[in-house]
Amino acid sequence: MLRVGIIGVSGYTGVELARILSGHPQVRITVATSRQHAGKFLSEIYPNLRGCVDLTCTNPATEELSQLADFYFTAVPHKTAMDIVPPLLRAGKKVVDLSADFRLRDVSVYEQWYQQHTSRELLPEAAYGLPELYRERIRASRLTANPGCYPTSVILGLAPLLREGLIDPATLIIDSKSGTSGAGRGASVASLFCEVTDGFRPYKVGGSHRHIPEIEQELSVLAGSQVTVSFTPHLLPVSRGILSTMYARLTRELDLAVLHKLYEQTYRDERFVRLCPAGSVPATQHVRGSNFCDIGLALDRRTGRIIVMSAIDNIVKGAAGQAVQNMNLMHGFVETTGLLGAPFFP
Amino acid sequence: MLRVGIIGVSGYTGVELARILSGHPQVRITVATSRQHAGKFLSEIYPNLRGCVDLTCTNPATEELSQLADFYFTAVPHKTAMDIVPPLLRAGKKVVDLSADFRLRDVSVYEQWYQQHTSRELLPEAAYGLPELYRERIRASRLTANPGCYPTSVILGLAPLLREGLIDPATLIIDSKSGTSGAGRGASVASLFCEVTDGFRPYKVGGSHRHIPEIEQELSVLAGSQVTVSFTPHLLPVSRGILSTMYARLTRELDLAVLHKLYEQTYRDERFVRLCPAGSVPATQHVRGSNFCDIGLALDRRTGRIIVMSAIDNIVKGAAGQAVQNMNLMHGFVETTGLLGAPFFP
Amino acid sequence: MLRVGIIGVSGYTGVELARILSGHPQVRITVATSRQHAGKFLSEIYPNLRGCVDLTCTNPATEELSQLADFYFTAVPHKTAMDIVPPLLRAGKKVVDLSADFRLRDVSVYEQWYQQHTSRELLPEAAYGLPELYRERIRASRLTANPGCYPTSVILGLAPLLREGLIDPATLIIDSKSGTSGAGRGASVASLFCEVTDGFRPYKVGGSHRHIPEIEQELSVLAGSQVTVSFTPHLLPVSRGILSTMYARLTRELDLAVLHKLYEQTYRDERFVRLCPAGSVPATQHVRGSNFCDIGLALDRRTGRIIVMSAIDNIVKGAAGQAVQNMNLMHGFVETTGLLGAPFFP
Amino acid sequence: MLRVGIIGVSGYTGVELARILSGHPQVRITVATSRQHAGKFLSEIYPNLRGCVDLTCTNPATEELSQLADFYFTAVPHKTAMDIVPPLLRAGKKVVDLSADFRLRDVSVYEQWYQQHTSRELLPEAAYGLPELYRERIRASRLTANPGCYPTSVILGLAPLLREGLIDPATLIIDSKSGTSGAGRGASVASLFCEVTDGFRPYKVGGSHRHIPEIEQELSVLAGSQVTVSFTPHLLPVSRGILSTMYARLTRELDLAVLHKLYEQTYRDERFVRLCPAGSVPATQHVRGSNFCDIGLALDRRTGRIIVMSAIDNIVKGAAGQAVQNMNLMHGFVETTGLLGAPFFP
Repeated sequence: MLRVGIIGVSGYTGVELARILSGHPQVRITVATSRQHAGKFLSEIYPNLRGCVDLTCTNPATEELSQLADFYFTAVPHKTAMDIVPPLLRAGKKVVDLSADFRLRDVSVYEQWYQQHTSRELLPEAAYGLPELYRERIRASRLTANPGCYPTSVILGLAPLLREGLIDPATLIIDSKSGTSGAGRGASVASLFCEVTDGFRPYKVGGSHRHIPEIEQELSVLAGSQVTVSFTPHLLPVSRGILSTMYARLTRELDLAVLHKLYEQTYRDERFVRLCPAGSVPATQHVRGSNFCDIGLALDRRTGRIIVMSAIDNIVKGAAGQAVQNMNLMHGFVETTGLLGAPFFP
Repeated sequence: MLRVGIIGVSGYTGVELARILSGHPQVRITVATSRQHAGKFLSEIYPNLRGCVDLTCTNPATEELSQLADFYFTAVPHKTAMDIVPPLLRAGKKVVDLSADFRLRDVSVYEQWYQQHTSRELLPEAAYGLPELYRERIRASRLTANPGCYPTSVILGLAPLLREGLIDPATLIIDSKSGTSGAGRGASVASLFCEVTDGFRPYKVGGSHRHIPEIEQELSVLAGSQVTVSFTPHLLPVSRGILSTMYARLTRELDLAVLHKLYEQTYRDERFVRLCPAGSVPATQHVRGSNFCDIGLALDRRTGRIIVMSAIDNIVKGAAGQAVQNMNLMHGFVETTGLLGAPFFP
Repeated sequence: MLRVGIIGVSGYTGVELARILSGHPQVRITVATSRQHAGKFLSEIYPNLRGCVDLTCTNPATEELSQLADFYFTAVPHKTAMDIVPPLLRAGKKVVDLSADFRLRDVSVYEQWYQQHTSRELLPEAAYGLPELYRERIRASRLTANPGCYPTSVILGLAPLLREGLIDPATLIIDSKSGTSGAGRGASVASLFCEVTDGFRPYKVGGSHRHIPEIEQELSVLAGSQVTVSFTPHLLPVSRGILSTMYARLTRELDLAVLHKLYEQTYRDERFVRLCPAGSVPATQHVRGSNFCDIGLALDRRTGRIIVMSAIDNIVKGAAGQAVQNMNLMHGFVETTGLLGAPFFP
Repeated sequence: MLRVGIIGVSGYTGVELARILSGHPQVRITVATSRQHAGKFLSEIYPNLRGCVDLTCTNPATEELSQLADFYFTAVPHKTAMDIVPPLLRAGKKVVDLSADFRLRDVSVYEQWYQQHTSRELLPEAAYGLPELYRERIRASRLTANPGCYPTSVILGLAPLLREGLIDPATLIIDSKSGTSGAGRGASVASLFCEVTDGFRPYKVGGSHRHIPEIEQELSVLAGSQVTVSFTPHLLPVSRGILSTMYARLTRELDLAVLHKLYEQTYRDERFVRLCPAGSVPATQHVRGSNFCDIGLALDRRTGRIIVMSAIDNIVKGAAGQAVQNMNLMHGFVETTGLLGAPFFP
């Protein structure tokens, strides 16, 4: 049994890690930290876990922390992560970091969108934790930067097209919609039930969302040239789920059947990517609670554009589930272990 | 008191007409038809109206129908409308038709997207019922084609830019999201609570939604050249509301302040268009139950694109409210009569 | 035009007062206070009101406050109210207080459930603001204590039965369910969208909710003897609405038709109480946004119990709407002025 | 591997059986029937199952059906079940029937609430499939009648009190609230998203819901005397979940601590019953997707009543999960196999 630790267990991502890892047959959670709730059972904070996850939140000092487990998930805000991760690595541990701190390879881009980076020496070795693109790097890594939720949905949706040069990156429009759990469990008026329910709105419009540099970094790698995108996030009155609708002009005329074949080939061996049959579309309610990314394709012959739609559960494939997938790779477990539960509907 | 008739009162649009018209101080509903519910009080079907709207659903023969009121709203499916409207006009009545039958000026476009048109002789005289664009035509008309819900949100959002030639129409992407009331009150599995709640999905992707020719007709008039758009509708887990997010490349570099001024000038005298202050965005929950269209603007300097966002209540400004606004114009009432209720939130 | 003031305009009740009063033809809001948002337009905080309600939040000193209007609504927490109300009365103003501070006639009961009362001298003159029971007292009063939301739904539902001695008060069970707006606009984890949506739970079970003494006070008056009730509130994943399901044993065998007739007679002249026809039940979605209280009755012959169900919009008939109804009475306006908008559905 | 069949796989209960059974390590689904969808992949009807459950819906003749599996779940409407079950038993198969047809031991009660019973000879041997009460009978049975969703929540909540004679059954009031999935997947106006969302209402009030005789049968066994209850179901705007709030007068004065101890002792060895700690309450969102029944207790000293609250997922512990639990018992598997997934939240 691998001893795993969750740093920051009391947020929505942390508790989802606890839920998933508690069903993983080859790991044992030996430490779960929460400053705010230290001393409480996790099931006091999340009564859904009563009788299922037997964990007490603690708040050990950094030096002690690194003795308590062999593999760590850091589910803390950016900036906090860059303080916590280095000592864990120095103690010989492996880490999947769920913050933004190790996702951007170019430190100047990081510092432009976030703040000063105090652990920049780790950036070159951090693997970008999207297994469908970087499986071998992740396997070999001791530090994996778990992708953001929006980037996961976007990159998986666009990778086949960009790699093959089938779309003009300059025409890319990404219109994404996320459930409210993405805003976290902090008490804020904007996330109150009455402010969100029976409504819908965009936010951070005009190129200001911090997932943009991450999306552009990976799309640029795939395209082989610098890609700049228009990206607009929206807030959905649902708990979980991201659906991204992506538009781009094809570089040459192509049948939908050909494009489908390309996606099938790309993702044939990917257990967590499901291609929607021609004529059908993804829906967030069909991936809820699962590690799947559902992708649908449509051609608009009238405008020469392809529309790619992808749906994930933002807390699973967009965070905790993908983190466990990365752990499976890094530790040598079967990649899908603990992650094959079917989405539930309704 | 103007005697008004509602043909098709038992759908979500029909009942909203009844609700709005019952608060209009200068009209009286003298006939409200429903094949399915003839003989019942409307408040049996919609108990919210008990004590507020005292109407009995009837199903009079066509010849009788035209004696029962002086102004008609036809809230019936397309194809049915083209049968019902002509006899009403022949009887000297005015009509606001809420179906698609008289919206498209080019009958061949209509027949390509719908079916054969049997009242094509009326197309030249039908006014397109978007008062912000066609106020004088509507005033002078005896037949007004009330716009579709998506087109209302899109056209109001883009009109100022297209008229001034500030965006390249070839780059237009329209990503729209609608509440479930847009699907009507028909019993269908796809509209069941359990299928829609806590979920989100696109539909009719790839240029197949029937509002596309209507959108393109009006955008082309505004642009002065043929416009073809990419339009993708999505289904929101809310009852009411449409939010359209629209992307286009600017034809020249412009400040957001300049664009805001343009919109302010365009809509200065429009009581039902509200421009969101710079930095803020529209939200469906802020127009719910009202005849407002809220418009927000953002510039993405990184890509040279403008993002226009517009929000309406699909049953009010997107249907029944706009129909009453058109009646007010056609009959010579003050345009805003009966329509100034504030949206309610939460 | 009556000059009215809203003390505490930025909460959900305050803003609903602003919405309703702005549609009232005989009043003008001349002051609207908010400590937190002083200096802002109300429509910055609630963009739904943009173009509808032109108010700036202020925070005047107490002495100044009483010069700014002639009629006041105090929509502040209990304890704050008992400080604010007395100077307004001393300045010769009339007040509808929406807090709990003047609802309980027995100061010892108040102090047992809340805290020390510092304005107890006002209790004897405060009218309990349920017009259906205390219309004449309210008309004559300068201080009206607006009822709590749960009590409004409960008292209106049970009044006819208790007055006639038709149920045994000792058997009364009240199971109430409220929308989340009842929790107010404070930032709290328990009211976050993700904590409330797609869920349902009781709270303050076992006789601890502070609306209990208020319910018992009024039911006791009606019954002519001390009534003690079991009352359990629950939290619904809806914004607005309270539905109370109330159970009691009949003191003698009675037909449902007889009971219906009793309710019809009791509420015949009450514009805001709507009796559901036999066989139908009230629903929160049918009173949303309105000042109506819908009441339904059922007999369970197998157990000899009557079940009374009542539905209100907790912010309207349960708070702001009823407050305006009280103002209308106190100032001599027609009681229903500004309050006759039909509930909207869907 | 046990070969299992699902008769009626395309309803919400059937598909949940498919989801749960596909994660059960000791069974294989060898037949899944659907008249309406015969010939389709189940994952066409429920795309959430794509890549997880590989089943084709079929519609075999009865004689063929009984060859295709060794254990059957009949998830069909009552009346249909009594036709399908007997031939399966004659063919030597075991059956868990999820309809109401074999739940009531007294055929006259069945015929009073439903219709004529054509397989009454099976009633004496059918086990009532609530393992917490009838574990040994279920183990020994070839036919188990899976309990209704409401009865499961009610009986588990009240069993300890009734068995010990601690409450007066004549005072029992059961106020239950169910998610909309309980209404099934049939296309009906009453279950449309727009009719249910943002609303709440009771239904079948006054002792007319068909789960009443089932509840009373089991409560009477527990009490040792005929119990008649007041039971009111309500419709929640959630997909899954039932919460029952139950009121009764204690027969003698008791501390909450004593009552807690009683429940702890009763359910100590029950893996699927979770007792909420004193002061906390169950919530449907904390059992969603799981086979748990959460129970909370409160005392109302003012009225001498106990309030018991129980929450289940109506499709899992209230239907498909409990059916699998029964299969595990009947076939000799470990009772919890396939059923230990943690509820997920948010």
